Amino acid sequence: MTRIIIVTVLILINICDGYGQSDAEMIRKVYDEVLQNGQAYEQLRFLTKQIGPRLTGSPQAAAAIDWSKEVMEDLGFDNVFLQEMMVPHWKRGEKEIARIVNSEKHGTVELDVTALGNSIGTSPKGVLTNVVEVKDFLELLKLGEEQVKGKIVFFNRRMDPKSVNTFAAYGMAGDQRRSGPSEAAKFGAVAVIVRSLTQVIDDNPHTGGTRYEDENTQIPAVAISTEDAEFLSSLLKEEPDLTFYLRSNAMMDKEKISHNVVGEIKGSQYPNEYIAIGGHLDSWDLAEGAHDDGAGCVQSIEVLRALKAIGYKPKRTLRAVMFMNEENGLRGGRKYAELAETNKEKHTAAMESDRGGFTPKGFTLDMDEQKIQRIHGWKDLFKPYEIFVFEAGGGGADIGPLKSQNVPLIGFKPDDQRYFKYHHTAIDTFDKVDERELHMGAATMAALVYLIDKYGL
Amino acid sequence: MTRIIIVTVLILINICDGYGQSDAEMIRKVYDEVLQNGQAYEQLRFLTKQIGPRLTGSPQAAAAIDWSKEVMEDLGFDNVFLQEMMVPHWKRGEKEIARIVNSEKHGTVELDVTALGNSIGTSPKGVLTNVVEVKDFLELLKLGEEQVKGKIVFFNRRMDPKSVNTFAAYGMAGDQRRSGPSEAAKFGAVAVIVRSLTQVIDDNPHTGGTRYEDENTQIPAVAISTEDAEFLSSLLKEEPDLTFYLRSNAMMDKEKISHNVVGEIKGSQYPNEYIAIGGHLDSWDLAEGAHDDGAGCVQSIEVLRALKAIGYKPKRTLRAVMFMNEENGLRGGRKYAELAETNKEKHTAAMESDRGGFTPKGFTLDMDEQKIQRIHGWKDLFKPYEIFVFEAGGGGADIGPLKSQNVPLIGFKPDDQRYFKYHHTAIDTFDKVDERELHMGAATMAALVYLIDKYGL
Repeated sequence: MTRIIIVTVLILINICDGYGQSDAEMIRKVYDEVLQNGQAYEQLRFLTKQIGPRLTGSPQAAAAIDWSKEVMEDLGFDNVFLQEMMVPHWKRGEKEIARIVNSEKHGTVELDVTALGNSIGTSPKGVLTNVVEVKDFLELLKLGEEQVKGKIVFFNRRMDPKSVNTFAAYGMAGDQRRSGPSEAAKFGAVAVIVRSLTQVIDDNPHTGGTRYEDENTQIPAVAISTEDAEFLSSLLKEEPDLTFYLRSNAMMDKEKISHNVVGEIKGSQYPNEYIAIGGHLDSWDLAEGAHDDGAGCVQSIEVLRALKAIGYKPKRTLRAVMFMNEENGLRGGRKYAELAETNKEKHTAAMESDRGGFTPKGFTLDMDEQKIQRIHGWKDLFKPYEIFVFEAGGGGADIGPLKSQNVPLIGFKPDDQRYFKYHHTAIDTFDKVDERELHMGAATMAALVYLIDKYGL
Repeated sequence: MTRIIIVTVLILINICDGYGQSDAEMIRKVYDEVLQNGQAYEQLRFLTKQIGPRLTGSPQAAAAIDWSKEVMEDLGFDNVFLQEMMVPHWKRGEKEIARIVNSEKHGTVELDVTALGNSIGTSPKGVLTNVVEVKDFLELLKLGEEQVKGKIVFFNRRMDPKSVNTFAAYGMAGDQRRSGPSEAAKFGAVAVIVRSLTQVIDDNPHTGGTRYEDENTQIPAVAISTEDAEFLSSLLKEEPDLTFYLRSNAMMDKEKISHNVVGEIKGSQYPNEYIAIGGHLDSWDLAEGAHDDGAGCVQSIEVLRALKAIGYKPKRTLRAVMFMNEENGLRGGRKYAELAETNKEKHTAAMESDRGGFTPKGFTLDMDEQKIQRIHGWKDLFKPYEIFVFEAGGGGADIGPLKSQNVPLIGFKPDDQRYFKYHHTAIDTFDKVDERELHMGAATMAALVYLIDKYGL
C-alpha cells in the first residue's frame, strides 16, 4: 500500500512538472547533450592554453575572472556577477636553487625543488648548511633542538602507494607540507625540504600551500621531487654531513583585490533557494591548472549550460561559482559563505568539483543521514552511466565554509588514480585532460543537480 | 542453521588452505604487492619503447616473443614454452597517399589516411576517380552499381559519441571497416575509404583489420581521420564531382611461422586444470601498441608474478598467455584452443585483458548463469577497490575459441572512455599508460584469479 502511494506521488510529481517523461529519460538527455555538444573541453583549452597559470593575485588570475564572466554571459545565463574580496599575493620570484655541494661520491648535484606556497624565501645569498632527515613530527621531537638547530630539516615520509583512495593517502602525508616548516622552526631549523606529495617516483616537484603558525616560525620551505628525495635520503645514509645549498626567492607581497565569479539561472518556483556548483579558478603558478582546477570550473559552467540547452527550467536558482584563492588562502570560499549568510540565501545544496577532470565514479556526501538516504534512492538512475559511488565524505575546500549554515555538501568524485601524478606540478596541463572523461563528469554532476533541483534534498 | 553450516565450511576451507587468513586479507595482500612492487609498467616500457610496434610476422613481433619468454623465465615461472603456428604476413609498404586533386574551393588537399590491415594496395600509379559517400550498406544498395562502379566508396558513419559504453559504439560502427570493402566491391567500387572508428574528432587515422569475402571482392581500403572525414563529407556536398587520388602500397605476403608464449605456475592440487590469463603480443605497425595490447600482456604476467611473490601456491595451474596475431588473423587464439582440445587440458576459466590499461571497473562474464552468480557472491571483496562491474559480456577475441569447449570466459573491463582515442593509431604509445592505473588493473585481475583458483567456478 505504501508503495502504491509512493509510486502515485512520484507519477504526480512528474506530471506536475509538465515534462511527461521519466527522470531516466531526462538524465539520458543530459548525458546526450553533454557528450554531443559539451563545451567544457574547448573552454578548458582557452583557460589553460591562452590564459595559463592563474596564481591568486596574478594578471592571469584577473584574466580568468574576466574570461569566465564573459563565457557565462555569452551562454545567456540570467545573471552573472562578481564577489569582491581581498586575497593574499604570494610570489615565487626567480627559480629556486637546491644543490648538494660537497658529496664525496657525487660532487655537486642540482636537485629539483619548488618553493611551497605562502613560504618566505632565503636571503639572496641562500642557506648553506647540513640536512637532517625525519619521517614525521615525532622523529623531529626526538632529534630535538640539539640536532636540528641551524640545519635544514628534510621531511621524507612517502605518500602511501598502497592506498587505493589517493586522496586518503594525500591526507595522511600532508602534515609535513602544511605544518612541517613551523614545526621544524620551533627546534631552530633554518629551512625545510618536504618530499613531494605523490605516490609516483619522478622528477616533478609538487608545490602546495604551507601555513606558518606565527611570525616566529617563518623559515624558507621547498618541496623536492620524489626521485630526488630518494636520492638525497640514500646519500644522507652514506654522507650524513653533506652540505646543502638552498636559495628561494619567494615572498608574500601585500594583499590585493580579487573576485569570485558567479553565473545564475534563476529558479522558476523557488528563486531564493540556491544550488551552487563550483570549482576554483586560481591555480598554482607552475602549470596550467588543467585538472586542478580548470576542469572543475568548466564542468560547473557546463552543468548550467547543458540543463539550459535541453530546455530544463530549474525550480531553484542554479549557480556556477568560480571560486578564487582555493590554493593559498580560501578567501573565495569564505567570502561566498559570508555573503550567503549576510544575504540570507538558503542553499539547498552545494557541489564542488576539485579532484580532477577524470571519468566520474560518483559523489562524496557531507550531510545528515536522511539526506544521504534520499540520494541513495536515486542510485539506480546512475547505473547506466557506471556511476556507483555515493558515500559519506567531504564536499570540497571552497564549499566547506557553508557547512556552518547546514548546507548539504557534495564532492564530485572522479577516478583519481592519476591525479597526484599531476597535482601542483608543471605537468598539470591541458593535454592530460580527456574530452570524454571531462564531459562524462559534467554530465554526471548535471544529472544529480537536476534531481536535487526537482525533488529538493 | 544453513548459514552456520556455510560459515563453518568456509572457515574449514580457509584452515585447510593453511593460510589462516581471510580472502579479504589475501586480496589486500595482492593489491599491496602490485601497487608497491608491480613490474608491469617497467615491462611495458621495454616492450613499447625498446621493441616497439609488433605487427604479426614482423621482426619486432619475433623480438617480443623472445623477450616475453625471457621475462617469464627470469621471474622463475615453473614452465615457459612456445606454441607454434602459421600466421598471415601483411605489409603496409610505403606510406599511403590520399589527395583531393581538383577542388574548386581548396585546390589540392592531402588527407590523413592509413591502409586497413589485410587490405591490398592500389597499383603503383594509384587510383584517380570520384568519391561517393554512404553511411551504411543500405545506402550503398540504394546507390547501386550505376552510381558506384569505378568510384571510391566513402563509408562515413560516425561512432556514436552518446554511447557511454565505448565498445558498444565501436561494435555498432565496425561493419564499415570489416565488411565495407567487400560490400563496395560487389557494386564495382575500385577502392574504399572508411571513417576512423573513434568518437573523437582529430587527425589520427585508425587502422584495423578488414576481411575480404572472396578473391573477387579485394579492393584497396584505407581509414581516414575523423577530421578529414568531416572535411571530405562537407566538401562532397558542394563539389560532388571532385576527383580523388589514392595510393596504397599494402600487400599480403606469404605466411610465416610465429608463436604464442605461455608461462605457467604449476597447480599444487589440480595441476591438470588450468586458468589462462592473457593479452595479445602483436600490435598494429603504426604505434607502440601500449594500450592495445601491451598492457594486457604485462598485466597477465603480473598476475602470476604477484601471486607467486606473496607466497600463494595455486591449486590449479595458472598460465600467462601472450597470444600472437589477434589484430589480423586470430591464429594465436585458435591455436591455443586447438592445443587445449588436443591435449585435453581442462580450463577452469580463461581471462583476457584487451581493453586498455586503464583504471579497473570490473569484468564481463561469458559463462552460464550459475557461474555468474558464483562470481557475484564475491562482489563485496572488491568493493574496497571500487570494483563494481560483474556483468554478462564477452571475454575477448583470443580466448573466444575456447568457448566451444565450454570454458567460462572473463573479459577484464577497465574504464574505457579514452581507449578509442588511441586505438589502432600512432598515438597508442607508452606515455598514454598510467602506472597506477595499469597496476590497479593487474591487481584486480589477480584477485579474481585467486578466488577462482581457490574455490573453482
